[in-house]
Amino acid sequence: VTEFELIDLFTSGATRRGEGVLVGRGDDAAVLRAPRGLELVATVDAVVEGVHFDRRFAPDDVGWKALAVNLSDVAAMAARPLWALCALAVPPGEDPRRLAAIGAGLARCARAHRTALVGGNVTRARDLSLTVTVLGAVRPGRVLTRAGARPGDLVLVSGTLGDAALGLHLAGRRGAASRDGVAALVRRQRRPEPRVALGLALSGSPSAGLDISDGLLQDLGHLCAASGTGAVVHLERLPLSAAYRRLARGAPDGLDPALAGGEDYELVVAVPPARLARARRAAAVAGVPLTVVGEITPGRGVRVVDARGVRHRPRSLGHDHLRPRTSPAPGLDFGKATT
Amino acid sequence: VTEFELIDLFTSGATRRGEGVLVGRGDDAAVLRAPRGLELVATVDAVVEGVHFDRRFAPDDVGWKALAVNLSDVAAMAARPLWALCALAVPPGEDPRRLAAIGAGLARCARAHRTALVGGNVTRARDLSLTVTVLGAVRPGRVLTRAGARPGDLVLVSGTLGDAALGLHLAGRRGAASRDGVAALVRRQRRPEPRVALGLALSGSPSAGLDISDGLLQDLGHLCAASGTGAVVHLERLPLSAAYRRLARGAPDGLDPALAGGEDYELVVAVPPARLARARRAAAVAGVPLTVVGEITPGRGVRVVDARGVRHRPRSLGHDHLRPRTSPAPGLDFGKATT
Repeated sequence: VTEFELIDLFTSGATRRGEGVLVGRGDDAAVLRAPRGLELVATVDAVVEGVHFDRRFAPDDVGWKALAVNLSDVAAMAARPLWALCALAVPPGEDPRRLAAIGAGLARCARAHRTALVGGNVTRARDLSLTVTVLGAVRPGRVLTRAGARPGDLVLVSGTLGDAALGLHLAGRRGAASRDGVAALVRRQRRPEPRVALGLALSGSPSAGLDISDGLLQDLGHLCAASGTGAVVHLERLPLSAAYRRLARGAPDGLDPALAGGEDYELVVAVPPARLARARRAAAVAGVPLTVVGEITPGRGVRVVDARGVRHRPRSLGHDHLRPRTSPAPGLDFGKATT
Repeated sequence: VTEFELIDLFTSGATRRGEGVLVGRGDDAAVLRAPRGLELVATVDAVVEGVHFDRRFAPDDVGWKALAVNLSDVAAMAARPLWALCALAVPPGEDPRRLAAIGAGLARCARAHRTALVGGNVTRARDLSLTVTVLGAVRPGRVLTRAGARPGDLVLVSGTLGDAALGLHLAGRRGAASRDGVAALVRRQRRPEPRVALGLALSGSPSAGLDISDGLLQDLGHLCAASGTGAVVHLERLPLSAAYRRLARGAPDGLDPALAGGEDYELVVAVPPARLARARRAAAVAGVPLTVVGEITPGRGVRVVDARGVRHRPRSLGHDHLRPRTSPAPGLDFGKATT
């Protein structure tokens, strides 16, 4: 197939038209009309075969995830996604049907979050990869950044933590894949659900926030660094799924995937106590659980304490994007740096 | 080095602030204010080691080219570039100093064209690559698309054609690199000069246009297809550099790099005769030669004719992005598909 046929194959399912799309795919650049009076947000993220996904991923999940991780960044800014561009790198001999299926997964995620695919590009490379740029819009003054948290603010996280990291860990173990609940955890790693509706609903409540892609501790650490604060996290308050509770029980460092595993794609936000009720109502509207896990403190750094107030030190401090994460090294306890 | 150190290294030289940049690098997404009343353009393009560049490229040139090929797309829309995002893929063991030098080259190109680097991302991959998204602005109604040419319009190209393709061809030949003029041709392939100022100056004159990245014939073919027209190109009118004339003389298919070689990053525009004088004045203001090479015709397809009116058929019909182009296959005549 030629470059042009490949682009057609890949993009055939994606929404071409959308709000403000004056010229979509097929010219040198898309032409877009920004919503009147709104500010724009722009973010880029890549998924690479052998690093972020492998042959065990369904192609549809690969495409979904490539867009979803970007939508998670848009959600973390309390913005509404509008437009996406996708640069595709294709190894020689790649199956065009697999590329079409990946494109269909991306299109599915785009439709679910009302995002138009307005541009793209295809090149050769040894690794299959998708680099996605998403543009969104936000009302002036309503953007949610990492800076702005104050001591006394509560720290809240959406959904449940650690499922993706524990799923990745278990998927790599012989015999584990058939255990009850593992499939649900694996699905969270392969097909993350960006918290777009929650980010929009929360708009105006948090003093600071971001999405958890590198593990709660590392990402909350970024929030604290940007805000010039510290934070304390209460181990017993971490929101865990039923599958996580069952499968992590008795394992050494059983809470480390929830603290530091990465790829949760949940939101962590700091909310002043006076706005807590409003944030809870917003979460109810968005249909996503929101749990108080700690507080913003003076000082620097994130401390984790157990129910007795004893400090807990996870064995890993968070995900590093330069390390592969399609499969943890065999024999490593989960929570270690490879997950 | 960690992911975060690498990002710092790579981006240290790039303009962080710029028009409309409310939140730049370092948060989940950049926050941008679009210029009031203008439309946006958005484009993405990647350069991959082993495909678009190799170890013979100076790192500074790699970074320059990664941004320049995108700015060329913005120029082709007659838009003004504003903001760029760069996703970097880094092989294990890559020299951080090389990455810093690549980042410096990107920063240099960004400064030259008043573009702020507002976001980025770094991941692992086997091939070093840079995927750059550029956003720009254009006055409503002034955007230059591929559609809109009418029979009778003149076909004009900026600068000179074929230098990059001939340079690439000669750079791969033993002994050729030292010949007079080869360095200048090679430089055009490694460090293209996007025609941003020309695109803006021309605004309103052309009926259609695009940039020449895949060779004049293929790209003019895109313009014709989008406009529902044909075109004729006069072989003797192709604008050629002095180095090209000297080095291509006597070679078989000596004009094919200019017709179909690719990577010219010049503009090809259709201009109604009544607006030719205005287009020429715009080119003079921008300081870039603009040459009439043919006409838009009824029908379909692009024909090339020599001075006697005899049809010329180049051996290659244009560049395919899925083929490597760091070096032509040995022994192939230039203009073949590998260049």
